[in-house]
Amino acid sequence: MRERTRAFLAHPRFHRFIIGVILVNSGALGLETMPAVAERYDHLLTTIDHVALYIFVAELLAKIYAERAAFLRDPWNIFDTAIVAIALAPMTGSLSVLRSLRILRALRLLSVVPSLRRVISALLRAMPGMSSIVVLLSLVLYVAAVMATKLYGGTAPERFGSLPTSLFTLYQTMTGDDWGNIARDVMRTHPTAWVFFTIFILVCTFVVLNLFMAVVVSAMDEENAEERAALEDTSAHTQQILDELAAVREELAELRRQAPTGLTPR
Amino acid sequence: MRERTRAFLAHPRFHRFIIGVILVNSGALGLETMPAVAERYDHLLTTIDHVALYIFVAELLAKIYAERAAFLRDPWNIFDTAIVAIALAPMTGSLSVLRSLRILRALRLLSVVPSLRRVISALLRAMPGMSSIVVLLSLVLYVAAVMATKLYGGTAPERFGSLPTSLFTLYQTMTGDDWGNIARDVMRTHPTAWVFFTIFILVCTFVVLNLFMAVVVSAMDEENAEERAALEDTSAHTQQILDELAAVREELAELRRQAPTGLTPR
Amino acid sequence: MRERTRAFLAHPRFHRFIIGVILVNSGALGLETMPAVAERYDHLLTTIDHVALYIFVAELLAKIYAERAAFLRDPWNIFDTAIVAIALAPMTGSLSVLRSLRILRALRLLSVVPSLRRVISALLRAMPGMSSIVVLLSLVLYVAAVMATKLYGGTAPERFGSLPTSLFTLYQTMTGDDWGNIARDVMRTHPTAWVFFTIFILVCTFVVLNLFMAVVVSAMDEENAEERAALEDTSAHTQQILDELAAVREELAELRRQAPTGLTPR
Amino acid sequence: MRERTRAFLAHPRFHRFIIGVILVNSGALGLETMPAVAERYDHLLTTIDHVALYIFVAELLAKIYAERAAFLRDPWNIFDTAIVAIALAPMTGSLSVLRSLRILRALRLLSVVPSLRRVISALLRAMPGMSSIVVLLSLVLYVAAVMATKLYGGTAPERFGSLPTSLFTLYQTMTGDDWGNIARDVMRTHPTAWVFFTIFILVCTFVVLNLFMAVVVSAMDEENAEERAALEDTSAHTQQILDELAAVREELAELRRQAPTGLTPR
Repeated sequence: MRERTRAFLAHPRFHRFIIGVILVNSGALGLETMPAVAERYDHLLTTIDHVALYIFVAELLAKIYAERAAFLRDPWNIFDTAIVAIALAPMTGSLSVLRSLRILRALRLLSVVPSLRRVISALLRAMPGMSSIVVLLSLVLYVAAVMATKLYGGTAPERFGSLPTSLFTLYQTMTGDDWGNIARDVMRTHPTAWVFFTIFILVCTFVVLNLFMAVVVSAMDEENAEERAALEDTSAHTQQILDELAAVREELAELRRQAPTGLTPR
Repeated sequence: MRERTRAFLAHPRFHRFIIGVILVNSGALGLETMPAVAERYDHLLTTIDHVALYIFVAELLAKIYAERAAFLRDPWNIFDTAIVAIALAPMTGSLSVLRSLRILRALRLLSVVPSLRRVISALLRAMPGMSSIVVLLSLVLYVAAVMATKLYGGTAPERFGSLPTSLFTLYQTMTGDDWGNIARDVMRTHPTAWVFFTIFILVCTFVVLNLFMAVVVSAMDEENAEERAALEDTSAHTQQILDELAAVREELAELRRQAPTGLTPR
Repeated sequence: MRERTRAFLAHPRFHRFIIGVILVNSGALGLETMPAVAERYDHLLTTIDHVALYIFVAELLAKIYAERAAFLRDPWNIFDTAIVAIALAPMTGSLSVLRSLRILRALRLLSVVPSLRRVISALLRAMPGMSSIVVLLSLVLYVAAVMATKLYGGTAPERFGSLPTSLFTLYQTMTGDDWGNIARDVMRTHPTAWVFFTIFILVCTFVVLNLFMAVVVSAMDEENAEERAALEDTSAHTQQILDELAAVREELAELRRQAPTGLTPR
Repeated sequence: MRERTRAFLAHPRFHRFIIGVILVNSGALGLETMPAVAERYDHLLTTIDHVALYIFVAELLAKIYAERAAFLRDPWNIFDTAIVAIALAPMTGSLSVLRSLRILRALRLLSVVPSLRRVISALLRAMPGMSSIVVLLSLVLYVAAVMATKLYGGTAPERFGSLPTSLFTLYQTMTGDDWGNIARDVMRTHPTAWVFFTIFILVCTFVVLNLFMAVVVSAMDEENAEERAALEDTSAHTQQILDELAAVREELAELRRQAPTGLTPR
């Protein structure tokens, strides 16, 4: 019975069926945002939503039944469960925030479509290489935000009034959006504020440039691993060839030593 | 006759003539946008436009006559035909949108100038490598747009009033343009909106960074293919050398076995 | 005694303790920016700040005692000393700028956490490779600022009124922030100003693109050094193999010359 | 006499002297932009300017005398001559634009400082690799500008009123500056304008991404040329080894054929 469930879940047709359900469900949630459509087909859209959710829950239960303990070992299963759990919550309540999270179900495509799955895996693999730089960037952001709040909090409260506001404004500055006007506003009362902004942007650009460098290097690492293996292979082979040649010379020397002695006595 | 048509079409002088027609036609369409010039030389500009179009149609017909079935196999021919077809449509009607599409004829340069043709081929070759990431980005955009419409549609209707509006606003946010002010507007009524915007920008930046990585890796792949071929060659050669050496030792052993036997009987 | 101090400073537990002090101190300085918290826990926050500072000073003195002359040779020690010195200054005075610099102590994490230390070292190593391009960019900025002040200083004094203002505006233009509106303002009186802005942006983009290229190349350099070493190894080995083979042929020739002479006399 | 002039021009001290003159001249031109300083030290600044110019002219004449025909073969000399010529023009007239061009003399640093000279050479070497893509980008810009002028010229004359205005606006859009607001303005009358803007930005981003790719690939090309040469060397060597081994086996076969015949008759 478990075998048959497993075969059923792994069947390409079932796979395509689940992709179809996700697409239809995502489309229906998109249509729900249009007042005219939402009013007229309210019942249909709600039904699609509920049926899709039942199918997802049934699929998860079948998977748990088929894989048991192994189910929790695959992080994609946990991802799917979390998404369905988020989607279940708003079915009872009616909080708009929770209801709006239902569209996250569209992200199940990430775990179901193999090519997207591969992209996500590649993204996650690139993460450790950049974690130190992200920590560094956060540290720079925090230090700059505390300083900006202390220095410019009184002058521009809507930009630097509190630590979270400053963090948001400096995050915006970091992405290069509208920072000139923000800096100019502050510079009206603090003429030396350009020092702060210029240094902050220079440091961020420099660190991001290096984040980028880290990404390129890690990409190259993977790319070159194969090549390097081939090179090491060749290196090993040339060593082997040298050993062989030494043996050949040894043998020749032996042959030469033997030949004369075997011939000269005559 | 077909042979002569083919030779005529392939002649460098004809080639230069077509490039000239495209440039003159594009220039004329540019001049048409200036009211003073357009009024005074209206007749001339229209004549240039019509003559150029006749030449393009004649060229295409000659090509079809010369290449027959092979004509449709070259995607560049289909590209040229589509551009001329778009240009033919507005000749009869007078819709401003269709009329403005006539300038697309300037894109025929892409199919006619070899170096541009090569650039386009390179661009198209880079596409499959990034298709999964583009799908991922579209998915993120769609999910975020549905959520934003649900959550902020009532508060900021001119930004997030409907799904297409939200898609446009979030596409703009993704390019980093003016997102700070958009977010600030929303945050006046939804103080926690910064969570949505910060996560959205982080995810997009991260995915785009990886899109970039994919491009670099694919560029390196092509670059390194040659090198890797050389390495594999070397690997194969070293294997061959080792085989040869084994044969040499075999022969030496044979020689040594033979030499004594040929000598000892004495 | 010096030995014991050194052992104490190098102990992992002491290391973790210092990291903890930095984090607590940074958190306290962050909380100080919130008026409600700052008022209520004023005494506590000040105490944390002072205690942390005493610990940092004690740590530095212990390090100087333990390492003596070697202390100044490690640039990280100088970095730590500078940061603590900045933090000591505002303890007596009450200048808001100096007080706000206390948060720089959070940057001590850079010298204490090994992974961050490595990132900073990598960033610094990338610097020489880009120094020439940074000088070039500064030169372009200076020349453009002098020209803009002369040309547009009278028209747009709030943007180009003086050399520092022009430098700031052009730095902003270089980051691509709001340059369209700045240029449009100037173009109302100087219709040809687009030439200046377009060339300036093209040159900056081009130089930055090459700055980027320099970073990638330097990243690859490090990456490829190992590979190149392997290649040179292989090259050296193949030369060695060729020498060996020449020796083998020499020996074979010798053997052949010998063999007949040993056999023909019969 | 020519020999001595050449030696004098090549002397490191003279070289440093010229760098000094450029720096002092550039600084003086910078100070001229400050009204207070310019008024008070007007005479001094003008004198510095004239003396510097006399020195540059004298240097150029000496170089022409020393190198004669070879003078024109070095593009840097032409660059220096052009800059000094631009600087000479305003000495007689008083046009503010020409006067402001005097600061271009600071760019003489590019030809005088070796490390900057190398950077510029590297930049110029990278140019051919990206020329096709720049042509492509210009073509896209031109086509889009003609279309935008035709379609939106009447609705938003200050943005798309004429071909040059459209070119400027679309160039700004390409750099991602404020395009959201420009598009939104147009979309008020042309609700489908988002199609135009979205496609334009996608195409530009895609082409720029590939421009970038071209730069990375060309950077790698240079980087890898050396490596590839080493690989080809190794390949050639392995071929040589295989030939040598074939010769060895030939010789062994010969030896074996000889040995028995020399021994069996007995």
